[in-house]
Amino acid sequence: MSVTEKVELYKFDEEKYLKEGDAIIAQRKEVEEIADQVFEKGFTNVFLLGIGGTEFEFAQFDYLLNKYSTLEVYAINAADANTVHPTKLTKDSLVITSSASGTTVEIVEALTWIKEIGATVVGFTKKDCPVGKLCSIVIEAKVTTGQCEYAYVLQSYLLYSILNKRNEFPEYERFADQIKNIFKNLVDIRKVFEPKADEIAKQLYNKPYTIFTGSGALWGETLLFSMCILEEMQWVRTRPVTSSQFFHGTLELVEKDVPVFIVKGEDEYRKQDNRVEDFCKKINAEYVVLDTKEYALDVDDKFRPFVVPWIVTALLTERLAAHYELYTRHNLAYRRYYHQFDY
Amino acid sequence: MSVTEKVELYKFDEEKYLKEGDAIIAQRKEVEEIADQVFEKGFTNVFLLGIGGTEFEFAQFDYLLNKYSTLEVYAINAADANTVHPTKLTKDSLVITSSASGTTVEIVEALTWIKEIGATVVGFTKKDCPVGKLCSIVIEAKVTTGQCEYAYVLQSYLLYSILNKRNEFPEYERFADQIKNIFKNLVDIRKVFEPKADEIAKQLYNKPYTIFTGSGALWGETLLFSMCILEEMQWVRTRPVTSSQFFHGTLELVEKDVPVFIVKGEDEYRKQDNRVEDFCKKINAEYVVLDTKEYALDVDDKFRPFVVPWIVTALLTERLAAHYELYTRHNLAYRRYYHQFDY
Repeated sequence: MSVTEKVELYKFDEEKYLKEGDAIIAQRKEVEEIADQVFEKGFTNVFLLGIGGTEFEFAQFDYLLNKYSTLEVYAINAADANTVHPTKLTKDSLVITSSASGTTVEIVEALTWIKEIGATVVGFTKKDCPVGKLCSIVIEAKVTTGQCEYAYVLQSYLLYSILNKRNEFPEYERFADQIKNIFKNLVDIRKVFEPKADEIAKQLYNKPYTIFTGSGALWGETLLFSMCILEEMQWVRTRPVTSSQFFHGTLELVEKDVPVFIVKGEDEYRKQDNRVEDFCKKINAEYVVLDTKEYALDVDDKFRPFVVPWIVTALLTERLAAHYELYTRHNLAYRRYYHQFDY
Repeated sequence: MSVTEKVELYKFDEEKYLKEGDAIIAQRKEVEEIADQVFEKGFTNVFLLGIGGTEFEFAQFDYLLNKYSTLEVYAINAADANTVHPTKLTKDSLVITSSASGTTVEIVEALTWIKEIGATVVGFTKKDCPVGKLCSIVIEAKVTTGQCEYAYVLQSYLLYSILNKRNEFPEYERFADQIKNIFKNLVDIRKVFEPKADEIAKQLYNKPYTIFTGSGALWGETLLFSMCILEEMQWVRTRPVTSSQFFHGTLELVEKDVPVFIVKGEDEYRKQDNRVEDFCKKINAEYVVLDTKEYALDVDDKFRPFVVPWIVTALLTERLAAHYELYTRHNLAYRRYYHQFDY
């Protein structure tokens, strides 16, 4: 029996998580067939259309597609898209969007004019909802809980099998086979992190100001946790900043009671994250590191770049959020303004 | 005599500012000849290479070139460029960079490998300095003070006359003629703003946390002021966020003693800035608006989009900075970490 098997995850239904995970994995063929269909039809560029959480969730795909493919990929905030109507978004574009609620107003507004343009829209949402009704194709996750990584796996099946068809991800089949166990892995990883989550939350929850650094594939996850969880759901004052921009202003704010939370990845940007850590050490700052390298996955090392953002989402956006809530006694579901009235 | 003529600008040498401004305007022909030369040689795309302040200063050109031209333009942070070596940066690229000191280490590192690639590099810097020596062409501002708008005017002569040659800015000559008086305008505007600068600084300097929103052409200027002035030079805790992202997290932090500073522009993004203002009104938040529309310029209305970022830089990065310093009694030149030791 491994050391983590006995760990009880606070406010986490392991059995349900794994069961819903199985349902996601079972959708692979369905999504790959949609990828075939979209690829057959053809497209000139790809727009990842999100807002708030979904914008930050798409950031990993924006980064990874731009890195591993010659596809023209644009990640775009729906409010900004509605403001400028990007000229490169044409009837030949492929638009990928996502909305768990299916009602996100900025996405509904965007899809309304995008539909008129005639672009192909694949939506990760519910079929029977305002967003779903505006999509050409809907991929509906067969789950009742909204873990980010469920969407990530479905989105990977779509985007990376398209890359495979473009001969840019020839090992896609092996990758898709290997992530079969991802949810089991992400439970184990949660258990390894659990005592740390408690420790970090206890250390940070009451700080007047916390700096968050991240970079590359993990910058989106850094924003997701600091903005969607801490700002929106915990009213905690944060300062998310990229590891490179940190050194051009924000560093001067590090002092007693202003900790730096460093999200550290595994690719070429790691040296930027390390530079933040080295700086913090040098000035004897208070800092916390979440290093994805510490967490094992049942995938070949070469596939880790595609999966490390999911580690961060599991450990921060899900686990650490629950532990912050425990200390702040501020219910994650409570908002003072967001969606409370029209603005 | 206008109402503002009697206003004395705190810590501002009007005579010197105008004299140096004349020297900048006198460089028009020199810069336009360089534009000819660069255009004749030809290039496939443009990289605006900055870091920290220069990165934020280039943001306006990134935004405006992408809006008014079909040129492929990429704004890139030098540290990130050094991390990834963008594949689209080739011997046929035009790289524009800037360094007032001429010694910025990230820029020197970037230009070293960019020179090997063989791209054309135009640098707004000093000829006899590490950055200047790595450039194909140096445009050296004939001034002794580093007002951002001096660089902006020279950069406009270069970039917008290139656009003119591409038939994308046919009224460039008229534009360039009209900005002859820009520095006189920017003195007048400073005088109109002076009492407000005092009032705003007095109101905000001691807040524990200040949110800054901006969008479109002014987002770079919003970062420039909040990061390079307030964070780096005043150690003031800020939270810069785009007007659209504000509504996806940061809004929940607005409360007593957490003001929102709204930088409001004049183009299609204005409605996003207005939405932030309307929200602040609705919840009775403490907020400040800097609206560029309130400030007159001797240029046709159609040219204002190219010049409004200069209003913001004059009023915030220069004027408001001086007034913050007056109240915080924190010398703008003082740093605890930045460039104080190796890190």
